[in-house]
Amino acid sequence: MYILKSTTKNELRKVQAAIKKELASEKIIQDIYEYIFNAEGKKTRALISLLASKSSIIKPSIRVDLASIIELLHTATLVHDDVIDESDLRRGSKSVNQVWTNSYSVLMGDFIYSKAFILMVKLGIPSILDELAKATNDIARGEIIQLELYEKKELIKLDELLKVSYLKTGRLFEASAKTGAMLAEKSKEEIKSFGLLGKALGTAFQIQDDVLDYAALKLDTGKPALKDFKEGKITFPLYFALQDIDSQDKKFLLAKLGKQNITSKDQNKIYQLIHNDKTQKQVNALLDKYSKETLEHLNRLRHHACYNEMINLIGYSKVRKK
Amino acid sequence: MYILKSTTKNELRKVQAAIKKELASEKIIQDIYEYIFNAEGKKTRALISLLASKSSIIKPSIRVDLASIIELLHTATLVHDDVIDESDLRRGSKSVNQVWTNSYSVLMGDFIYSKAFILMVKLGIPSILDELAKATNDIARGEIIQLELYEKKELIKLDELLKVSYLKTGRLFEASAKTGAMLAEKSKEEIKSFGLLGKALGTAFQIQDDVLDYAALKLDTGKPALKDFKEGKITFPLYFALQDIDSQDKKFLLAKLGKQNITSKDQNKIYQLIHNDKTQKQVNALLDKYSKETLEHLNRLRHHACYNEMINLIGYSKVRKK
Repeated sequence: MYILKSTTKNELRKVQAAIKKELASEKIIQDIYEYIFNAEGKKTRALISLLASKSSIIKPSIRVDLASIIELLHTATLVHDDVIDESDLRRGSKSVNQVWTNSYSVLMGDFIYSKAFILMVKLGIPSILDELAKATNDIARGEIIQLELYEKKELIKLDELLKVSYLKTGRLFEASAKTGAMLAEKSKEEIKSFGLLGKALGTAFQIQDDVLDYAALKLDTGKPALKDFKEGKITFPLYFALQDIDSQDKKFLLAKLGKQNITSKDQNKIYQLIHNDKTQKQVNALLDKYSKETLEHLNRLRHHACYNEMINLIGYSKVRKK
Repeated sequence: MYILKSTTKNELRKVQAAIKKELASEKIIQDIYEYIFNAEGKKTRALISLLASKSSIIKPSIRVDLASIIELLHTATLVHDDVIDESDLRRGSKSVNQVWTNSYSVLMGDFIYSKAFILMVKLGIPSILDELAKATNDIARGEIIQLELYEKKELIKLDELLKVSYLKTGRLFEASAKTGAMLAEKSKEEIKSFGLLGKALGTAFQIQDDVLDYAALKLDTGKPALKDFKEGKITFPLYFALQDIDSQDKKFLLAKLGKQNITSKDQNKIYQLIHNDKTQKQVNALLDKYSKETLEHLNRLRHHACYNEMINLIGYSKVRKK
């Protein structure tokens, strides 16, 4: 895990507590809500918000409020994603659609989204509301484009993959960093740098997420292996592999893509094909590009209280296995 | 149809135009969005908002903006409802989940919700944002409670049905009327009266909606007959019938409830059982109660520019067949 100051760790704990406090009066909603938030995620977006909002002029409890809102928004997208991906697991536990049904997932997602908006209104900063409403819209937009994009399979272009990565992942990282800086009343220039930092970091995170989908075949990532592949998703490693390997292997990969049952022999072959030298180099180069871009934006924020922790987070994002 | 002033009709047309203008740059989203909003609904909630916001001090275009936001929110709930109910039709056309898939419906619902929030932020009135965020949350809450409630079948109590009706229907009627009055800078008392009027009218609308699910067996309502019944929903007429009829008929109704295939002979029997005198009297008495309540609240708003049109809308809500 990355190195955080104990104050930041404590704030992340407060985010979890703040979210759990947001209860409804009905037992069924309490049950599902607690189920969702008992499985703790990494809270990367909440962390970015907390780091960007560090400031002596803002009360820590308000920074926790904003980070909680962002974590709620993110969780709502995950709950809806599980319906779309027909997922069985989320954060190591059965997903809501498995324990209850898809209908509960759709409605609990809506419940959590609107809860986040209620808390945003309470926070009362129009520029933050605007940014988070737009980010939420962009995430949905990205996921819709993604659904259609995967139909194109090997014809997908790198810039299309990058656009979807930005919208579905980078966009909320960007909004987390930007709204954190807005809350701390940073200058226009600094808010912009935080936004660009978040955007690049989010893309780096998505690339590493894609890498881990295949790496999970050989190491413990806490997530099932080939989840994306079995859902028919063209991720960065698969994109590069499809450019690099010969046509017979390409045919093999495309034949297995989106299939639920893949023999362990085939899984091994998939792993080998994705881990050919050229593909690995290209994936690593892309990850490096976005990590470097993140650092460049951070360099303009050297004076900021979050600098050292952000450096650690960026380093971690390249090597993380979970 | 109810009698509206030509200016109001014109404003409703502007709501439709304003919504259709809210496009995304991607063709797939344009296609689904246009598909959804080509099938025009009654726009009852937008109309209530337009009537409540009538005022010489507010620019008509801003009143249309608010009404459009409310129509977007309502449509987002419908798109998600179709996933939950596994509906085939919506507003006479195939539902989004039928033409595309459930995944597109979930994401387009999110897209439209967040679009509504973006426009709310642009409107820039915190009290309106607060009310609409809370209403959205209550709608999701109501639908979740409803899912669980139907499992109880004949054990459901009238106050439970009324609570769900309020949350899933009355709540947005209430918010439409309240935020319309807020926009027109009405007094606290008037805003309260508009809210109570909307709440009562929404419940009356829901009762009539429930009635039409059975009435559609004999007359053209523009909607398929027994849709709610086939989805296993305990509605007001069914609730009363289950109290009124003998145990063998009750057993018959409960055996058919939630079944997709019902013979025309059985449909006839269901119609007869629901249309027994006692049940009809009880349903009508309940509808009357909420219509009268609506009128009582309207009476406190006699001086308001919307008075005559609102009277027509309330009268219509009791007799409407669509």
